[in-house]
This record gives sequence, structure tokens and C-alpha cells, in this order.
Amino acid sequence: MSKPINVTVWNEHRHEKTNEKVASVYPQGMHTAIAEGLDVTGNIQIATLDDPEHGLSDAVLNSTDVLIWWGHMAHGEVQDEIVERVHQRVLKGMGLIVLHSGHFSKIFKKLMGTSCDLKWREADEKERIWVVNPGHPIADGIGEYIELPQEEMYGEHFDIPQPDELVMVSWFEGGEVFRSGCCYTRGMGKIFYFRPGHETYPTYYNPQVRKVISNAVKWAAPVDREYPRYGNAQPLETIKEKA
Amino acid sequence: MSKPINVTVWNEHRHEKTNEKVASVYPQGMHTAIAEGLDVTGNIQIATLDDPEHGLSDAVLNSTDVLIWWGHMAHGEVQDEIVERVHQRVLKGMGLIVLHSGHFSKIFKKLMGTSCDLKWREADEKERIWVVNPGHPIADGIGEYIELPQEEMYGEHFDIPQPDELVMVSWFEGGEVFRSGCCYTRGMGKIFYFRPGHETYPTYYNPQVRKVISNAVKWAAPVDREYPRYGNAQPLETIKEKA
Amino acid sequence: MSKPINVTVWNEHRHEKTNEKVASVYPQGMHTAIAEGLDVTGNIQIATLDDPEHGLSDAVLNSTDVLIWWGHMAHGEVQDEIVERVHQRVLKGMGLIVLHSGHFSKIFKKLMGTSCDLKWREADEKERIWVVNPGHPIADGIGEYIELPQEEMYGEHFDIPQPDELVMVSWFEGGEVFRSGCCYTRGMGKIFYFRPGHETYPTYYNPQVRKVISNAVKWAAPVDREYPRYGNAQPLETIKEKA
Amino acid sequence: MSKPINVTVWNEHRHEKTNEKVASVYPQGMHTAIAEGLDVTGNIQIATLDDPEHGLSDAVLNSTDVLIWWGHMAHGEVQDEIVERVHQRVLKGMGLIVLHSGHFSKIFKKLMGTSCDLKWREADEKERIWVVNPGHPIADGIGEYIELPQEEMYGEHFDIPQPDELVMVSWFEGGEVFRSGCCYTRGMGKIFYFRPGHETYPTYYNPQVRKVISNAVKWAAPVDREYPRYGNAQPLETIKEKA
Repeated sequence: MSKPINVTVWNEHRHEKTNEKVASVYPQGMHTAIAEGLDVTGNIQIATLDDPEHGLSDAVLNSTDVLIWWGHMAHGEVQDEIVERVHQRVLKGMGLIVLHSGHFSKIFKKLMGTSCDLKWREADEKERIWVVNPGHPIADGIGEYIELPQEEMYGEHFDIPQPDELVMVSWFEGGEVFRSGCCYTRGMGKIFYFRPGHETYPTYYNPQVRKVISNAVKWAAPVDREYPRYGNAQPLETIKEKA
Repeated sequence: MSKPINVTVWNEHRHEKTNEKVASVYPQGMHTAIAEGLDVTGNIQIATLDDPEHGLSDAVLNSTDVLIWWGHMAHGEVQDEIVERVHQRVLKGMGLIVLHSGHFSKIFKKLMGTSCDLKWREADEKERIWVVNPGHPIADGIGEYIELPQEEMYGEHFDIPQPDELVMVSWFEGGEVFRSGCCYTRGMGKIFYFRPGHETYPTYYNPQVRKVISNAVKWAAPVDREYPRYGNAQPLETIKEKA
Repeated sequence: MSKPINVTVWNEHRHEKTNEKVASVYPQGMHTAIAEGLDVTGNIQIATLDDPEHGLSDAVLNSTDVLIWWGHMAHGEVQDEIVERVHQRVLKGMGLIVLHSGHFSKIFKKLMGTSCDLKWREADEKERIWVVNPGHPIADGIGEYIELPQEEMYGEHFDIPQPDELVMVSWFEGGEVFRSGCCYTRGMGKIFYFRPGHETYPTYYNPQVRKVISNAVKWAAPVDREYPRYGNAQPLETIKEKA
Repeated sequence: MSKPINVTVWNEHRHEKTNEKVASVYPQGMHTAIAEGLDVTGNIQIATLDDPEHGLSDAVLNSTDVLIWWGHMAHGEVQDEIVERVHQRVLKGMGLIVLHSGHFSKIFKKLMGTSCDLKWREADEKERIWVVNPGHPIADGIGEYIELPQEEMYGEHFDIPQPDELVMVSWFEGGEVFRSGCCYTRGMGKIFYFRPGHETYPTYYNPQVRKVISNAVKWAAPVDREYPRYGNAQPLETIKEKA
């Protein structure tokens, strides 16, 4: 039994309410499918855009080790104050798993410092997510590749900082590639961007996709140590007087 | 003769006006000392905080390949609109050299996505900047280390993303270390953070410090290619119909 | 309770037999002090240079998740065949923790591809090992720095590939810095180089040093997945005929 | 006019002598096509396996800034002594461009420390090499991707260390991806692995492929500085006596 990790799954939860196809794939919301797929011990909470404080109160974040983020059509409605709050938590060690169209979320762009732009296409095409770093804990138990029969295409150039560790690269039927599994550390927080999960496909029911997200949660769990001290510091050694 | 690179040296230019010691070290402003030390062909422009648009109009940025940034006491006075403008330019390829206390500038924090916080101490102590990547172009012509008899101390933890390439690490007399020469790519832009240069010391007259800054300008010069296309894309290959 | 990890501690075990000072510090051998400091579940085995096959038979390696390596005066006596055997195991996922003078071991040089050379000095000087990546699992439970009152100095340039993740940097009283905690992945194996541990000092009794080594063992434990398939491959997609 | 860079193109030069198809594509040898495509100032030398010392005498290497390497069927015939000589030169700053099947050359494996194994397939399939780091100097003047109508497939997992900088990723018609443009620093030497160039296709006549190789030569050119000093070092600071 591994150490408990408390996870909060944040979902924009709009497509499910307005689009029949999405509602039929995810009748309880994408967050439910994501949460059900988590193989972690610890509490799992749900938070959505339309909850008070988007469900991300200080109390919720205080009891969150790793936050999972899915957003798309309403990135602009996420309040800057909440983004700032989440940002501070990540720098202090909370893990963050950003899924699919979350690449354009305020929090991901703020943490990356780049446009996070990319190419995309909705054409029901095949995606094959290749593991390029098979010794990485996020690749634990995953085969050589994950094949998704239908997904939205995301293509390079993906405007992100070079990942600290690149774990997966996608192949798309229509001719593109994409860096699909990207690890970062920002402050004391670990961040994993994972590409798949367009709202019209049952991707978050895929056992291998669920395994990757569970692995990522474990990888992104905070270390147990004090936040560094910053600011004015006394010398640790005697400083010689200068002539 | 190498390719011309147009450089703009941006200086906050406040300490020099209010602090006698700084004025005596840099009577024409720190920007002048930095600009005079540049061994590059191409035009060199000066821009300061109190210029209209902080000296960073579209016209100036249009004719800038690499921007050098020194700021400290007035980071908050830099207008967000100008920060946004510089950010966009960096993502499109303009190089950026951030010096010393510029670690806390809005533009550096925006590009890094972290707090960029650190330890500091003003105690006239010795700094020794060790080259840890001697094959890097920014280390060209530099000895094993650069010794500065008196500098402000900056100590770890320095809250930055892990550099894409770490070129230099400082030793301080009072007992700390610091990652002093850090390379990043963000979008198409290359960024170099270089630690030394407290306003009360003649650091920017040091020939080795000047050599590093000149090397960094050459390293950060933009490539000659089109900005990537983003957004909706047509398939390059035929996509098979799904049953 | 975390997952059991089987560890083999390899020690050259020569200094202890020939040098009184070393024998007085480590009367049961350095391996015993290192093994006693391990806070891991799982079996711990000992192997030394003068054992048959240097204690690294296939049977031993088959039951080793992570191998710890301390060597110094007899690197040349390690048989190439055993080095090759360990190398293959690392590529297939066995973790490797290389300590101190192990930087010049055949196995570390083979994995790094560089000379692994450095500066050194034996002068009973103070070392302070600063954490530069406080969110890293190897920094779990460690303070801002580890202070060792007396150690051998190792100084830059340290001729290693840029670490995939740099976790610690040392400050030395005599004026040098050193990249002291360096993470690599090679094949499916994770490697951690950790600087301290000269044979004449009681470094491996230090609780923080022991904590780092224990953390590194957990970090370097293998993932649970198949080794990739290499070689000739059939197409996964139909390849269109060319005219 | 840029600084002259002396380049030596090393070619195994066996396929051209024994395989009619290869001879028809590269009647003067692959080295000639590679050399003709170089847009660099400086001397260009040719060296092949069957030359004395494989054409890589000390005199030749003394006048080589960057070495380009193509080999395939006779990796085993390259003498270990010559490999060692080239290795030493790379660590001291000589650039190395490894092409295609050179991934399995002794020199590349020695520098990488891994098996350098991969998947492959000869099926006349389309390759599309996507630029994932458009600000990198090796991507200068290159479009979004380079399309090669027919090439040998190389697929992941490619057993290399994570590149210091990943510049290109290939898409293959048959369903695989591959990290195709990989930058490393080893010692003071810069290394670029570039995937395309199977002997039966006219890849080295492709203007974009030639541009990449020329860019890589410029990127890999040595810096102008002394090799670091290693070994026993005197203290730079006074070391306090311990009680």
C-alpha cells in the first residue's frame, strides 16, 4: 500500500451540459470518469468552474496534494484570483496534471511562460502515443504505445518550454507528431501535461490513459520538506574585510 | 566579421540619479557601461524606464535583435502593456539578457512562470563565478572562473525552472552558491540570466563580465525563419474512415 | 509502508584494510555504514571487489533493484566483463547510486561517455551541499543544505553530461563549487551521482547524507514494465505505394 | 562572412562499392554528396574506413573543427584505437555530427553510454521531420517540417540519453515517431544526431537536409578557450583550522 495522496479533479463541466454527444459519452461529467479511473489511495474531491470559487477554496486546496485540470471553452471565465491561488500552491509543492485542452488554461500558460499554442484538427483520426522514456515512473505498466482509435489531433509546433522530461510523443494519422507527455518542475511543484482527452471521445475510460494519469498523480505528489527561505540572509562564513 | 546584431540596452536608471555611490561608479548610467562593453557589430540603442513607453516602442523593438535588461527598485512601475509587448517579441524570437536584480522584473517572472525569488546579502563579499559548461558558446574566451572582489550575494534556492543549459555557478565568501548563468528558450526566443551586477560595484567594467554579456548576445540572436503556424490545420495524409 | 526495494551495496573495501584512519572510522567497512543507513524495505546485500565476480554474479544482480557503488583506489581491478554485466542491467532498469570517488569507476564513465574528471583537494575543509531543486524526491526531508565539517574537496569543471535533473550543488571553504547531486536516465535505468563520502571522514554516518541515499534508492527503483522491443518492425499502418 | 570551420566528412564507403542501387544514387560516394551540400567556409576533408587509420590521423583531426560520421555495415571494423582518439577529440571540443545508421557506431555508443538501439523498417515510406524547437540555430531557415518521400523508418524507443535539446521529431507513414534531431554536449564537444540518410535514397541531395547539416556544423563548432584543468588543486581561500 502506498502513501495516501489527496487528489482534486477540476473540470470546466460545460460541454457536458450543452453538447449532446459529450453528454452521451460522459453522462456524469468528464471529472467523474477521470476520478473513477484513479488508482490512488487518499481522498478524491471534485471541483468545477460553476462552483463557488470554482470549487478551489483555500480549504479545498489545503487538502489537495495533486490537482487535475480539464478546461476548454471557458478558460476566460476562470477568475485571475483563483489562478493566482493555484499558482502559489503549485510553487509550494502541489502537483498539477493538465489534460488536453487545458494547454490553453490560464494556470498552464502562467506556469509555462509561453503561448502554449499548437495545431489542432477534429477529424476522428487515430492517435498512437509512443513512450520515449520507458524508465520513467509515468510509463510504469504502459505498453510501447497507447492507441486511441479516434481523437482530436494536436500538432507541433507546441509552444511550451522544453520539458524537463519528455515521456511520450504522439503520432497522428493525418501526418503530425506531438509531445504528449511532458514533465516540469516549477517551484516545488511538479506538473505533467498529458495530451489526450477530447470531450467527444471516450478517452478517459481507456485503461492505459487512466494508468498514465494515476502514475502521474503519484509522480507529482509533493515532497515532505519545508518551503525554502528567501530574502535577506546572514553570512554563514566570516567575510574578510576588504582593504 | 560576424553577422550584425542590433542590441537595445534597457536600464531602469533610477539608482544612478538618487544614490551618490552608484552615480560615482556609473556616472553615465549603468546602461552606458553595459553598452560600451558590447563586442558586437550592429546598432546599439539605449532605453530607460522614464522614456516614453519606457523606450520600448514598437519601432525600437522592431529594430532589436537582443534586449538587455537591468532593473531593481522600480519593477512595479514597468507598465503591464509594455511587458506584454516585450513578451510577445521574445516568443517571436527576440533574445533577452536579464542581468542581476532583473530576476524580479515582470518580464522575467512572466517568462519563467515561477516566483524567481532568492536569498541576498549586501556585504562586500567575494564572488567566484565558475564555468560548469566549458563548451558552451557563452563560455567562449572565459577562464575557469570570473572573480569579482566585491559583489552582492545571491543564494539558493533560486526559484527558477531548471535551466535548459546551466553555464555558470557562483561561489560566495559568506557560504552560498548560486546558479549564475542560465539559458532558456521560450517560444522562438532565447533568454540568458546572468547574475552579477549590483549597482554599487564596478562589475560592468570587468572585461570577463563584458565578454560573457557579448557572448550571450551572440548566442541569443534570433534565427532566420518563419514563426510557426498555429490553429486549425488540414490533414497532410488521408485519414481512413472509421466504421 | 512502501514497496520493497532490494539493494546491493558494492564497496571496493581496500582502504579499510590498509589505512588505519579509514579502519578506525569504518571498522566494519564503508559498505556496512552505508547499508545501516538505508531506510528502505527489502533485502540489502553486500558485495565487494575481492568477492568472486566482485560479488556481482547474475544471481545477485537478478535480485537487485538498486545498486550502490563506492570505489576509489582499485577502479582498474574491476573486470570489464562485470562492468559490462552491470551496464546491461542498468539499461534494463536497475537503479545505480554512484558515491564520491565512484565518479572515476569504469561503470560510471561507461554510462556517462565522458572523462568524469574533476578537481580535488584533501584539506579537511568544510562542505555545504545546497539543495537547488527542493521539490525533487531526493530532497525529501532535507534542509536547505547539508553541512559537513570536514570533507575532501571536489571542484568544477566536473566533466559529466549535463544532468537530466540537478538536485544539489556544493560550496567548499577553499573556494570551489561542485554539482553534487546529479540525476540521469540511461536506457530504463536511473542513476544518481552523490558527491560526499571520502574514506577518512565519518560522512556515511551523517543522518542527512543517509536520508539522501535512501531517497535516491527509492527514486531509482525500476518501473514495472517490459523492456522495449528493438530491431526490424512491421508497419502498423498501411503504406501507400509510390509511383 | 562567418568564421571558417574545418570539416571532415567520414564515410564508411562500403555500400557504394557493393550495392548497385547505392552506387547509382551516390556514384561518388555518400561523403561527396554530404560534402557538396555543406554551406560553410573552411576546408572540407574526406576520410573513409579503408584509408590508413580510417583517414583519421592525428594530423587530420588536428585540422578538424567538426567531424561528420556516416557508417552502417562495418561499424565493427572501426579500430578501437581510432574510436578512442576521436572520443578524446570530442571531449576537447571537436564537434561531431552523427548521421542515420551512425547511431550504432562505436563512437556514438561510447559517447552516449547506452545501447542506441531502435526499431527500423525498409519499406519506402514517407517521413516527415517536424521542427519542435523552432528557435534553435539548427532549425534556421527550415520550414515547419522536412518531407522525404521515401526513407527507411526508425522508430521509438530510441535508446539514447534524453537530448540536452530536442530539435526535430519524425513522423512515419507506417505508424511510428522518432526523435530525429538531438543535441548533446559531452566534455567541451557538441554532438548532433540527425536521423535521415538511408543509403538507397537520395536524401543527402535534399536542400533542407543539407541546410540542417550545415546549421549543425556551425552550431557544433568549438569555442575558443582552454581545456579545463583537472586533478589536485590548491585552495583559493584560506581554510580555517578545525579544532
